[in-house]
Amino acid sequence: MSKHSQATRALKRRLGPAVDTSEQGCWAASFDSSKISFLPEAVITPRKEAEVGVVLTLANQHRVPVTVRGRGTTLMGSAAPIAGGWVIDMLRLNKIKIDDEAGMVHAQAGAKTGEVQRAAAQAGWFYPPDPSSKEFCTIGGNIACNAGGMHGGKYGVTRDFVIALRGFLPTGELVEWGTATKKYAAGFNLRDLWIGSEGMLGVVTGAVLKLVPAPAARWTLLTAFADETQAIAAARALFRLRVQPAICEFLDRESVVCAERATGRPVFTGQPNRAVILLELAGAASEVKEVSKVVLDWANEHALAHRAARNRDEAEQLWQVRRKCSGAMFELGDTKLNEDIVIPMRAYGKFMTFLAGLKKTSRLAIPTFGHLADGNLHVNIMFHRADADESRRAEAAVERLMQTVVSLGGAISGEHGIGLAKTPFLRIQHSPAQVAAMQAVKRALDPKGILNPGKMFEIYEVWKQPKLAVHLPWDHK
Amino acid sequence: MSKHSQATRALKRRLGPAVDTSEQGCWAASFDSSKISFLPEAVITPRKEAEVGVVLTLANQHRVPVTVRGRGTTLMGSAAPIAGGWVIDMLRLNKIKIDDEAGMVHAQAGAKTGEVQRAAAQAGWFYPPDPSSKEFCTIGGNIACNAGGMHGGKYGVTRDFVIALRGFLPTGELVEWGTATKKYAAGFNLRDLWIGSEGMLGVVTGAVLKLVPAPAARWTLLTAFADETQAIAAARALFRLRVQPAICEFLDRESVVCAERATGRPVFTGQPNRAVILLELAGAASEVKEVSKVVLDWANEHALAHRAARNRDEAEQLWQVRRKCSGAMFELGDTKLNEDIVIPMRAYGKFMTFLAGLKKTSRLAIPTFGHLADGNLHVNIMFHRADADESRRAEAAVERLMQTVVSLGGAISGEHGIGLAKTPFLRIQHSPAQVAAMQAVKRALDPKGILNPGKMFEIYEVWKQPKLAVHLPWDHK
Repeated sequence: MSKHSQATRALKRRLGPAVDTSEQGCWAASFDSSKISFLPEAVITPRKEAEVGVVLTLANQHRVPVTVRGRGTTLMGSAAPIAGGWVIDMLRLNKIKIDDEAGMVHAQAGAKTGEVQRAAAQAGWFYPPDPSSKEFCTIGGNIACNAGGMHGGKYGVTRDFVIALRGFLPTGELVEWGTATKKYAAGFNLRDLWIGSEGMLGVVTGAVLKLVPAPAARWTLLTAFADETQAIAAARALFRLRVQPAICEFLDRESVVCAERATGRPVFTGQPNRAVILLELAGAASEVKEVSKVVLDWANEHALAHRAARNRDEAEQLWQVRRKCSGAMFELGDTKLNEDIVIPMRAYGKFMTFLAGLKKTSRLAIPTFGHLADGNLHVNIMFHRADADESRRAEAAVERLMQTVVSLGGAISGEHGIGLAKTPFLRIQHSPAQVAAMQAVKRALDPKGILNPGKMFEIYEVWKQPKLAVHLPWDHK
Repeated sequence: MSKHSQATRALKRRLGPAVDTSEQGCWAASFDSSKISFLPEAVITPRKEAEVGVVLTLANQHRVPVTVRGRGTTLMGSAAPIAGGWVIDMLRLNKIKIDDEAGMVHAQAGAKTGEVQRAAAQAGWFYPPDPSSKEFCTIGGNIACNAGGMHGGKYGVTRDFVIALRGFLPTGELVEWGTATKKYAAGFNLRDLWIGSEGMLGVVTGAVLKLVPAPAARWTLLTAFADETQAIAAARALFRLRVQPAICEFLDRESVVCAERATGRPVFTGQPNRAVILLELAGAASEVKEVSKVVLDWANEHALAHRAARNRDEAEQLWQVRRKCSGAMFELGDTKLNEDIVIPMRAYGKFMTFLAGLKKTSRLAIPTFGHLADGNLHVNIMFHRADADESRRAEAAVERLMQTVVSLGGAISGEHGIGLAKTPFLRIQHSPAQVAAMQAVKRALDPKGILNPGKMFEIYEVWKQPKLAVHLPWDHK
């Protein structure tokens, strides 16, 4: 008999067909993209917002752990029901409504990010946050981890686009944080406290998101550099010119080699195995034209070679390269520690020197790529799980990486969050007083500790856990 | 003998000359721009950040109320030491340092907003938040109330520019929320919980603020309309064209009459006593040129008359009008209830109808102006304090205003906060569950309740209190 069977029976009486206790349903909700499985006792798929409140009220009465999930694309284990109990699946609450005049979109938590973007584009607006899983992941999940993407440097991340939230306190009461207005200064800001709290401080059911006018023109340029040091120095020179590219993606040589293996041709024709930066300008046609001249002068001065896309098809081909490097990394190891660290611009040079050293001393492949306009780099430590020595070196490398990131004034996560995967590093980033303050807030809002327990604060070493051998639709591999 | 004399002696032993217990010093710190005076027992002016921690630690040991102030320009009473105790004056912690490459500024809490703007401008950057008291108020105060200003619609408010904060928990520990990077997703977001918490959840000592590239060109247009309804309808038509003016200021006819009295000439030559909208475009030269054509077509279609500034001097003359209307309102009454409400765009028409009715039924002058691009309107209910009947009508009018604002989906404050002045209306905006959640967070971070007690949650009717007859340098009157 399961631990919370009495509570689950009460839940079924209240919500009937919204509650699934089948083995198959519970298994499917037992893991996210971290692929570590923890079986829940029931999966609730609310068809109405109010049903979320019913679940939470019962969970508090019976002390049942509750984990909320969207599509489960998080790599961090944030949506894994580590303590069992109940999972709330938000995918049916997925309405999207554009407020054309105000330049806002009202989206339910289960709406897909890609669909929000398309609805905005159809109305002539632009919703910039674009996590790479955007065709699968949900606005609720994006809010939970404060998702970013390639547009962060110029446009900002999910937090910068959230105008108001509605949802439920861990204790089950319906609340609204903020109004559908661009200014708001009425009471403590629990809206932003919820954003990035990884489903631990409340359950978001709907959001009002800000839109920006769709850029009329885009211009894409691929640039190649002899090595990482040259590429980084060039990028800094570009930012000093006050150029704000909409996207500024960097791939180190290891990532480029992966992309070249995946596609069977050089990333930059005639310049194989070079570090590259892929730039995109976006804005009014006249503005893009003006700035593209500045960028071309810069490329002539700093890059080994450069090539502008002549049209959107060519631009799309360039972006494909960026997307393909990630999957190809699994030729370098069967396991990837993908760390989405952030480095302040002034420390870019120091960090690249450190990373070159780390590759040497760890004797591991660590292909690295990311968003240079905001310092958010994806450092991929590749190793073979069955090789005990490689595993130990990978573990040591990630520890050194996190220590270095924080000592350079950076962040251990830019857009993924902590979940389970980064719990061993939280206290590198945060002092005891900071962790205590966060935990005090958690206790204040969730006195019985039912909402997404075991995350953020309790140390869990994901790399020591068995992983499911499942292929998910958004897997790079 | 004062209530906390033992604690104050201990404080003097620790911090010596930073502690002022003189009658004059305490009187000067006894009020903010709400001009309601509450004498503290000591004023501490830290010269080093660490002294703030000493004050808070002692205050917790001895249960002494602590209120933090910058320049005290708030109209809401947020910096008034209503429970006595100690005041921390942040004005000496006022360093400003530009990080040119990253496009950020590191500012201590006591730095003036205007000085931050000038430092940014000298480096070719732009810091958009611009409360009207910007030559006096401080970054710390701006963060405390999430200050806005005229640029809110296009650029956002203080919150949108805060990258990281450092300061002290109410219990005295030094903490840092966020890093000097544009992405950050590592732990609960107490940075944004602090922003707008009006000095009740922590003491900010320093901030990293985001800058944007300085717009190369600006273009200013004054437009006149027959009445408020026409002006508002025209503004909505402009936003539907996807035009995002950097500034879009509206003055109703009562405000225009005030400005005309103050300056002795019509706001719009040849069109006296008209509702006006003052627009400014900002951006790349080519972009401003392109959009100004769209705006001129719009003005030709919708406005009675329009006039573009031929240069920055003429533009400055137009802006003077906007700044002067506020002071001139005191000819309509000796007391002003300045309510900075926010209305969603779709409700602009309904709100203007309500406001016209309110002016009639209250038989009071209610000149109204504000920021149309973000719906933040300053509704100024004018009355004569000594006239009991007028006072009652003003009180009834503000209550009806707040009820209507919330029923239209708006906010009772857009950029001033709650402080003391808006405490009677907090529960119109927030449900009991929302207020309880905020109070739980307060207790979690400030278990002894020493930091800025008496604000936000306890009802205080400012209009019934005697006011000091002092003139402050930033007073409009």
